[in-house]
Amino acid sequence: MQGLHLTADASGCDADAPAMREPAALRALCLCAVAQAGLTPVGELFHRFEPGAATQAGGGGITGVVLLAESHLAVHTWPELGAVTLDVYVCNFGADNSAKAEALMQALLTAWQPARVDRQSLRRGR
Amino acid sequence: MQGLHLTADASGCDADAPAMREPAALRALCLCAVAQAGLTPVGELFHRFEPGAATQAGGGGITGVVLLAESHLAVHTWPELGAVTLDVYVCNFGADNSAKAEALMQALLTAWQPARVDRQSLRRGR
Repeated sequence: MQGLHLTADASGCDADAPAMREPAALRALCLCAVAQAGLTPVGELFHRFEPGAATQAGGGGITGVVLLAESHLAVHTWPELGAVTLDVYVCNFGADNSAKAEALMQALLTAWQPARVDRQSLRRGR
Repeated sequence: MQGLHLTADASGCDADAPAMREPAALRALCLCAVAQAGLTPVGELFHRFEPGAATQAGGGGITGVVLLAESHLAVHTWPELGAVTLDVYVCNFGADNSAKAEALMQALLTAWQPARVDRQSLRRGR
């Protein structure tokens, strides 16, 4: 399956932004950006790590995903580091969704306003 | 956030395998592989596309995710193509989870037995 996978590892984000710690806020941000990009959500799941929990992600961050008809969006937040990681993956089955993927990633980066970002792009199913 | 992201785009899989079309079968496969790899699930979501649905993925396939304390596993199936895409992403926060990520990907590829696979590996948060 031919597709495009975009990643962004962002730091220097506002650690006090509601979407860093509140699943409802992150969900709203993600669904708004997905709709603006013209992609099609089919389900979503957001999990908040309890502050101080004995896990790999114990700083009160959120891990979440929006399942898309075109594939998925995944977001992980680390408020204790001011960091966010983003994944946008679209398959080009019946249509080239690359421009929509780029639009979604750009909308999320605009919302997070990171001081630094490491972006990568994978062409999948070569 | 430094981490490892593995992708596999597999084709020539058994289109009649239960995990191709049955969310419960795919969920069981994923959770078993996650447990064997020593990773920590915190939630999961699986969506089945209705056969013939007017979406990008209308062949009765499944899109699903297991949220992990270490990040996530995502799987998309296309029974009409005998194809599966896999994503394993782990952050190395407090521990290096790279070996567990590799073990999870290997377990899933062993289960799917694809005739062909395009694997890629991203070092994230450089």
